[in-house]
Amino acid sequence: MTEPFRAEQRVLYGDTDSMGVAYYANYLKWFEIGRTELFRRVGSSYRSLEESGCFLPVYEAYCRYHNPARYDDVILIETSFTLAGKARLRFDYRLFDKHSKTLLAEGYTVHVCTDRDGRVLKPPAELRELLSQMGEI
Amino acid sequence: MTEPFRAEQRVLYGDTDSMGVAYYANYLKWFEIGRTELFRRVGSSYRSLEESGCFLPVYEAYCRYHNPARYDDVILIETSFTLAGKARLRFDYRLFDKHSKTLLAEGYTVHVCTDRDGRVLKPPAELRELLSQMGEI
Amino acid sequence: MTEPFRAEQRVLYGDTDSMGVAYYANYLKWFEIGRTELFRRVGSSYRSLEESGCFLPVYEAYCRYHNPARYDDVILIETSFTLAGKARLRFDYRLFDKHSKTLLAEGYTVHVCTDRDGRVLKPPAELRELLSQMGEI
Amino acid sequence: MTEPFRAEQRVLYGDTDSMGVAYYANYLKWFEIGRTELFRRVGSSYRSLEESGCFLPVYEAYCRYHNPARYDDVILIETSFTLAGKARLRFDYRLFDKHSKTLLAEGYTVHVCTDRDGRVLKPPAELRELLSQMGEI
Repeated sequence: MTEPFRAEQRVLYGDTDSMGVAYYANYLKWFEIGRTELFRRVGSSYRSLEESGCFLPVYEAYCRYHNPARYDDVILIETSFTLAGKARLRFDYRLFDKHSKTLLAEGYTVHVCTDRDGRVLKPPAELRELLSQMGEI
Repeated sequence: MTEPFRAEQRVLYGDTDSMGVAYYANYLKWFEIGRTELFRRVGSSYRSLEESGCFLPVYEAYCRYHNPARYDDVILIETSFTLAGKARLRFDYRLFDKHSKTLLAEGYTVHVCTDRDGRVLKPPAELRELLSQMGEI
Repeated sequence: MTEPFRAEQRVLYGDTDSMGVAYYANYLKWFEIGRTELFRRVGSSYRSLEESGCFLPVYEAYCRYHNPARYDDVILIETSFTLAGKARLRFDYRLFDKHSKTLLAEGYTVHVCTDRDGRVLKPPAELRELLSQMGEI
Repeated sequence: MTEPFRAEQRVLYGDTDSMGVAYYANYLKWFEIGRTELFRRVGSSYRSLEESGCFLPVYEAYCRYHNPARYDDVILIETSFTLAGKARLRFDYRLFDKHSKTLLAEGYTVHVCTDRDGRVLKPPAELRELLSQMGEI
């Protein structure tokens, strides 16, 4: 991995809570944006992967909250990918405030590769090729 | 219709926004709870309806916001049902603060009856029977 | 009003439901993106409006669902603004699939202008100036 | 800790995603329900804690997904509490399908105790008393 991939998302009113900051579960949505855009970066999409019969349900998710994101802030999402065993994929995320460059949160998700019915698969050749490209971003 | 059906839901932290009140889109989730529990009230469930091949996508939704719901308030959801034409169903909702009985919001959703592929259907006999029971609650 | 303002948002996995399409409450989030970006378009932001003590809580919301949005679709949000009475603001929205140009939904929200404690205000001069610019977009 | 505290929540349509199962970020909302109800169980509420000037922002969150939750399932949320250092609180959660008793997910959140402006505090006496009761549930 040379440099993590960057995506952006603005904090909506609906993302905040009555403490005046982004609600903690929404960081996992921003993680989703990060990994989705990483797939697109290598010329594919998670949607087309699903259409080919390969699903990547989440097995584990972790987030460490450093500084609160606030309404209307633009979040910079850095995502990097590593293969974690034969059938497990790991994405690491770092979320920054785009304006101040403050680190907001960091975390990871681990995914397994399954068929439509949830049976664990070895990643098919098409996915392995994508993953290999993503691991080099 | 004699008396509307009542369900309850507590406002979560994640339902609020930085204005300190429930975010406006969440009232549509509470509407969903109202109509779901109305199906259960007549001994069925929206899930079993779907399993029988009958879907009720939303065609229209309206909400008028009277008073803000706040974190940890218990919302009382009153739901009533009417058949609106051959293939349209209408649910009306009134949301109250359970403690103070203040009216928080009122609104409606209109649904069409479709098959799995989104083709509009006349409600099948099983659904018509349910609807007839729901209309009498 | 000459031409409505356009913003974009991609449908996340978390925006969809088990019917395989975007959940109906999420359209109200996309409406929020539309009106937020309209404020930004005239060189201001809803956040700075709030910082000046002027809030725009939602009074009414309506959505008519034409065609389902699906995972990973890019939604084009057209927003236009009109003043509806002395203290009421109305935003109209049309949501399109960016790729196919299909109309997905249309609707509106009506807002009142209040102070921090929820007391209705006549829109202050700063807001009236913004609104006048937004009405001309 | 003798026995974890139990709360319940039904999976809404809006909680699911197009894979037909509950979206992964929503488990963090169910964690919130678990800890909120634990506060209520000891005769207090997180709201009254905030009103006394004591906030518990999330510092870390982790979830391990075992089996998918589906639309209309009732989730049983088991929550237990431990004090993790002078100013850190840890809640552990286990989510079960109420009907089948299948383990759906388990995880934890770590919180710090702060004042309204986000400054870390030693938990005040009132909170320490509550925590001591919660640790014994």
